[in-house]
Amino acid sequence: MTTSVAPFTADDFAARQRRAVAAAADAGLGGVLVTPGPDLVWLTGYQPTAITERLTLLVLTPDAPATLLVPRLERGDAEASAGAPALTFADWSDGDDPYAAAAPLLRPDASYGISDSAWALHLLGLQDALPASSYRSLTHALPMLRAVKDDAELARLAGAGAAADQAYGEIVDVRFAGRRELDVAADLADLLRRFGHEQVDFTVVGSGPNGANPHHEAGERVIEEGDMVVLDFGGLRDGYGSDTTRTVCVGEPTAKQQEVHDVVRAAQQAGVDAVRPGVACQEIDRAARAVITDAGYGPQFLHRVGHGIGVTTHEPPYMVEGEEQEIVPGMCFSVEPGIYLAGEFGVRIEDIVTATDDGARRFNTTDHHLRVVS
Amino acid sequence: MTTSVAPFTADDFAARQRRAVAAAADAGLGGVLVTPGPDLVWLTGYQPTAITERLTLLVLTPDAPATLLVPRLERGDAEASAGAPALTFADWSDGDDPYAAAAPLLRPDASYGISDSAWALHLLGLQDALPASSYRSLTHALPMLRAVKDDAELARLAGAGAAADQAYGEIVDVRFAGRRELDVAADLADLLRRFGHEQVDFTVVGSGPNGANPHHEAGERVIEEGDMVVLDFGGLRDGYGSDTTRTVCVGEPTAKQQEVHDVVRAAQQAGVDAVRPGVACQEIDRAARAVITDAGYGPQFLHRVGHGIGVTTHEPPYMVEGEEQEIVPGMCFSVEPGIYLAGEFGVRIEDIVTATDDGARRFNTTDHHLRVVS
Repeated sequence: MTTSVAPFTADDFAARQRRAVAAAADAGLGGVLVTPGPDLVWLTGYQPTAITERLTLLVLTPDAPATLLVPRLERGDAEASAGAPALTFADWSDGDDPYAAAAPLLRPDASYGISDSAWALHLLGLQDALPASSYRSLTHALPMLRAVKDDAELARLAGAGAAADQAYGEIVDVRFAGRRELDVAADLADLLRRFGHEQVDFTVVGSGPNGANPHHEAGERVIEEGDMVVLDFGGLRDGYGSDTTRTVCVGEPTAKQQEVHDVVRAAQQAGVDAVRPGVACQEIDRAARAVITDAGYGPQFLHRVGHGIGVTTHEPPYMVEGEEQEIVPGMCFSVEPGIYLAGEFGVRIEDIVTATDDGARRFNTTDHHLRVVS
Repeated sequence: MTTSVAPFTADDFAARQRRAVAAAADAGLGGVLVTPGPDLVWLTGYQPTAITERLTLLVLTPDAPATLLVPRLERGDAEASAGAPALTFADWSDGDDPYAAAAPLLRPDASYGISDSAWALHLLGLQDALPASSYRSLTHALPMLRAVKDDAELARLAGAGAAADQAYGEIVDVRFAGRRELDVAADLADLLRRFGHEQVDFTVVGSGPNGANPHHEAGERVIEEGDMVVLDFGGLRDGYGSDTTRTVCVGEPTAKQQEVHDVVRAAQQAGVDAVRPGVACQEIDRAARAVITDAGYGPQFLHRVGHGIGVTTHEPPYMVEGEEQEIVPGMCFSVEPGIYLAGEFGVRIEDIVTATDDGARRFNTTDHHLRVVS
């Protein structure tokens, strides 16, 4: 923790565990199985030092206390986690069959939601140990489990967004022309840390033609006068994510650079304006995409419009065609349309927003107009 | 890459792919399915910038060219990987069903080996798309796939081990008493990087009672005169792993500290001496464990004796009771017995060795006697 927010307590974790059990029952599931990763952090505060082939499994069912099965040599660490008072512990030792250790905690014929990122090794082990059991990924079974944030979570996301905005406020004053993308990316990482991030997840600096690859990170290319530069950066602050994108121009933009940027800016605003409780997530994608398609750049918009954010920088709900999940107040997600002109440049503008009863509230509030840098 | 070793070529990757297909056929499998992680790096040289919920899947079968299915917006990166000339590419876009995109690459009723760390999300998606297909984890189905290293790999592992030894050679001259574990850990990380590691995976500094927790990393505890200190450190150099442990004493050891260290040293030697082609992996565990059990410390030896190492610092084969896999020349693994006296101190000694026709060759060759530091 890098600031003075109050840490989550065992009561907070117990409440989340109850929410998960209730959601599982509503979805017709016998319980929820969680392996190390963001779901486990959210439900228990526990994060093993490494995610390995050794099974760690949180079992949440209506019939028994929340139980965390851990490798014996990690039990001490697990018992020291913030959520430990809300947990019962079980363990297994090297040489034991960890799935045989898990089986008594489960019903042999029930259906369970399981962490998306649970290793296939472990899912296959459970399927073998309990052949009549069945499994659904948590994202498919309980997509909303972490999606609606409470006030303490919203405060952390707002803080992370504000810190990212502070980083943007400083990065536009550094020198771009003549420096490598990697150098500007290092500046961005330093700024995120200076403004309280304990973890930097990405610092994309896509200059000139590199900006036309939406997944370009940062490389050896030396930024030139006249380049458009996509800056997409974020990480975790107090355990919650930031993720924002602005596209700047090194020197005065050409008419085409300005025009493309204007289209993306209008598309981003249209996406944000479409956020209302009860609207399907795909409508956010459609609203932003329509602006870009109408401007003739539909084929150059290569990705969905947004993704959720919380204890990770990338999680449900997704703002994508086909996602009929309705927006609920407290959901937090990105709105980030882009246009990618192969061999020329790219433009993307991204804010994190949270849905309220009245529409979207932005956690990123830096100016959207095309900023000229030096 | 941090040194001048020749990079692996598309031919190297193609040969590994053929080895995987042949091994799968021998195991009665229809092919091998590989998601991002060490197996994909080993088979293709490709490592996405992040492992996300978007499906990336390498499909290796006897019937078709090796095919890498990627999210469309990552296709450019994938096509730039070293192994790309040995691959056919397919892609899917946001909004598509990635498992429907994968299904035509597979036989509907075959059994496949799948990466241990493939996400449950993806395995469940494949099981749903092809209900008559079946899956086995690669570690269970093809445990030997990456276990036997070729000469180019052995050279990298030897280089990584020598670099870790150089780091140990310098760390014993730093000040321990009065400094925090975290400070010594930072010194170790700096040394690993200085000696060519591009990635530091762990720098355990377990002083006094912290050394009795085999998974303790490094913390705020200030190291004191009289402490035993477990130093366990490693990472990747030229893409291959190092992992070595020495236990040092701050000032002259007590009789008990010396005795326990002597037992572990003898156990480690016994484990190394047991390495011969054709011997079951569990025999390495048994040989080391017998020394510790005979000395009366059996219950204080809490973990298996060793694990394989290669493009990861932790992989099959495992030197553990129940592992009947026979040692094959070219296998590389740790031999690392330990004794953990709760509330007092811990001792562990670890070398990476490779099996040869004549027995074990150590990649770590620093002295095993208890070293006194200041």
